[in-house]
Amino acid sequence: MPKYPDPMSNISNFKIIESTLREGEQFANAFFDTAKKVEIAKALDAIGVDYLELTSPAASEQSYNDCKTISSLGLKAKILTHVRCHMDDAKLAIDTGVDGLDVVIGTSSYLREFSHGKDMEYITNKAIEVINYIKSKGLEVRFSTEDSFRSDLVDLLSIYKAVDKIGVTRVGIADTVGCANPRQVYELVKTLRSVVSCDIECHFHNDTGCAIANAYAALEAGATHIDTSVLGIGERNGITPLGGLLARMYAGDKEYVKNKYDLTMIREVENIVAEAVEVTVPFNNYITGYCAFTHKAGIHAKAILNNPSTYEILNPQDFGMTRYVSIGHRLTGWNAVKNRVEQLDLDLTDEDAKRVTAKIKELADVRPLSLDDVDTLLRTYHHAKGTGGHTSVFDKIDTPDKIADISVPKQTK
Amino acid sequence: MPKYPDPMSNISNFKIIESTLREGEQFANAFFDTAKKVEIAKALDAIGVDYLELTSPAASEQSYNDCKTISSLGLKAKILTHVRCHMDDAKLAIDTGVDGLDVVIGTSSYLREFSHGKDMEYITNKAIEVINYIKSKGLEVRFSTEDSFRSDLVDLLSIYKAVDKIGVTRVGIADTVGCANPRQVYELVKTLRSVVSCDIECHFHNDTGCAIANAYAALEAGATHIDTSVLGIGERNGITPLGGLLARMYAGDKEYVKNKYDLTMIREVENIVAEAVEVTVPFNNYITGYCAFTHKAGIHAKAILNNPSTYEILNPQDFGMTRYVSIGHRLTGWNAVKNRVEQLDLDLTDEDAKRVTAKIKELADVRPLSLDDVDTLLRTYHHAKGTGGHTSVFDKIDTPDKIADISVPKQTK
Repeated sequence: MPKYPDPMSNISNFKIIESTLREGEQFANAFFDTAKKVEIAKALDAIGVDYLELTSPAASEQSYNDCKTISSLGLKAKILTHVRCHMDDAKLAIDTGVDGLDVVIGTSSYLREFSHGKDMEYITNKAIEVINYIKSKGLEVRFSTEDSFRSDLVDLLSIYKAVDKIGVTRVGIADTVGCANPRQVYELVKTLRSVVSCDIECHFHNDTGCAIANAYAALEAGATHIDTSVLGIGERNGITPLGGLLARMYAGDKEYVKNKYDLTMIREVENIVAEAVEVTVPFNNYITGYCAFTHKAGIHAKAILNNPSTYEILNPQDFGMTRYVSIGHRLTGWNAVKNRVEQLDLDLTDEDAKRVTAKIKELADVRPLSLDDVDTLLRTYHHAKGTGGHTSVFDKIDTPDKIADISVPKQTK
Repeated sequence: MPKYPDPMSNISNFKIIESTLREGEQFANAFFDTAKKVEIAKALDAIGVDYLELTSPAASEQSYNDCKTISSLGLKAKILTHVRCHMDDAKLAIDTGVDGLDVVIGTSSYLREFSHGKDMEYITNKAIEVINYIKSKGLEVRFSTEDSFRSDLVDLLSIYKAVDKIGVTRVGIADTVGCANPRQVYELVKTLRSVVSCDIECHFHNDTGCAIANAYAALEAGATHIDTSVLGIGERNGITPLGGLLARMYAGDKEYVKNKYDLTMIREVENIVAEAVEVTVPFNNYITGYCAFTHKAGIHAKAILNNPSTYEILNPQDFGMTRYVSIGHRLTGWNAVKNRVEQLDLDLTDEDAKRVTAKIKELADVRPLSLDDVDTLLRTYHHAKGTGGHTSVFDKIDTPDKIADISVPKQTK
């Protein structure tokens, strides 16, 4: 937590609009049948996301039925559907029983083309009509532009101000093409914050790698809601990933995130979605990538063994994960090896650990060693020390393959 | 390009220190033999990265020999090696023939523990001794702290000021644990920029998803050099990825990036490294992920077909990639289908395209259709139109599987 918190910041008070069942359905591989949608919705609800956003009922007959099905599950999360700013779409959506509508202006070209002319007036009137109708039915309504970061600023602010005035629940900013950067996001949200009094939702694509950072900057500037999807799936390479955002927010306010969301469920929902859309969870995925908590260089391993927070901003246990310190490679260090000595309960000095470490480095220049290999070297050395032969015990082991030939002595201590 | 460029910003004037052969070697799976290191070094040199950073020659005998080998390849990129702030390590490194040394203070705990006391003085003196020695040998020298964002600010600035005064080539800031966020980075680099006159290098881990955005913010604040690795491989889930940074910088200044780096080589070097460390390129990887240029929702597809820049900040051709517009799914739109009609050179009206689109949506509610399926529907409709039977042509096709039963009529036009 910062020493002097910014009163504008919502780092410790944000909501997640989980859009795997809308934006995620726009991912190249995605095809969710009703059963899979229900499974994903329930898993996301178990994590504790605040909202679920679903594909427009206007997209297809099944999309309409799925909105009905999911709205009637009785989930804790509120159910939204994402519709174009048309009365027909709005009416269809309201019929499905959702809690709210995320209304979007259909194409970005509108916003870039209109400029204080009749297009602007036409759009604004259309937005007001649709918003008033949705409100009259007692539903939440968000109004969003598309491609907000390449739109005319005055037009943007004018339309947001107009819809805020008639009581829209939220306005939305969308970086539809993934071009925005964090300082730009901070400036736009901060400006918008001074113009509207309603909530502010943000949606960031990840084409240029800023989708998580932009979400964080938006919250710092006073945004209230962030759109996510599981593994970030969406159009092209996707949007802010749920897991990555939770990692980022945990670094910002650990207690808020831990108390509000079940972080140990992230891996499960990612596995469900990865399997459904036939992708592999990326090796370097936030939190759940298989090396996210693996430490390798000697200097890191040493510090981690003394005090994990030296090289970890995320505590793996909070996410249901475990830490792994890798030691059988040429970047290893004697402190990490010494730690393994202690785990094995062998009686070896620092000098001993340094000798075995030198041997590990020599052999690992040929190929990496397994933990078994390392243990065999340590146990062999330890056994030889008992008989005084430890200074020459490794003389014949000049390649990693010879480790397998050693008959491992029983632990003598 | 911004309308009023910031004179402090290096968005249009930055250098890349490519650390796949140092940070990347600290990735859990990484083991590079000499031949593989040479192959990676040459591929990175072909992209045009400014520097290659190699593992310390003090790590192992092979590491020493590999520094020598790569330094003697005659690459355009300058060769650096990353060493602890020790005279022994520095001497060993200089012997290998590298162009410069990236010196780092061994552990972050130093910086958090010393505080204007003798530790501070000791570290500073040590740094000065090592830097003066490297300079006396005519090599570049960078001095970096570790875990800079959790260090005492006054201590940080004091030591950077001291080494700048004696003519260090660069100072380095490292977010070793991946905790930093872009506004924090911007503030620290901006402050540092006012304290030192030398170049500023930045190194960002990606644990909380900000490694690319932090690099961009650092350059905006006046940093000059960014550390990267191919696919971001490194300790834990890694650092700023080379491809992702190039995507981000392309969005900032396309001409600078296109003229300086061979962006069409990114895919090749990623494939080499992915194979060497036995990982799959993530499905959502920047630029080269298989869906990075796939457009799906009808509204996106329509706009992309009219003008790609509506939904693309990156031009796929500049990266040796191609665009793909997906149309055989329930989110499709008739404009995208119409575009396919034109590609197939069929003589169909907008009304015709809308009828086929409705059929695609109906069938794709069951399962997604291949492009072949879509083409079959279009050709069948087109053929039937010639005989006047197009209004009932799809009546018997009530599931996607029945598309396969259609004997595709030869194109009649």
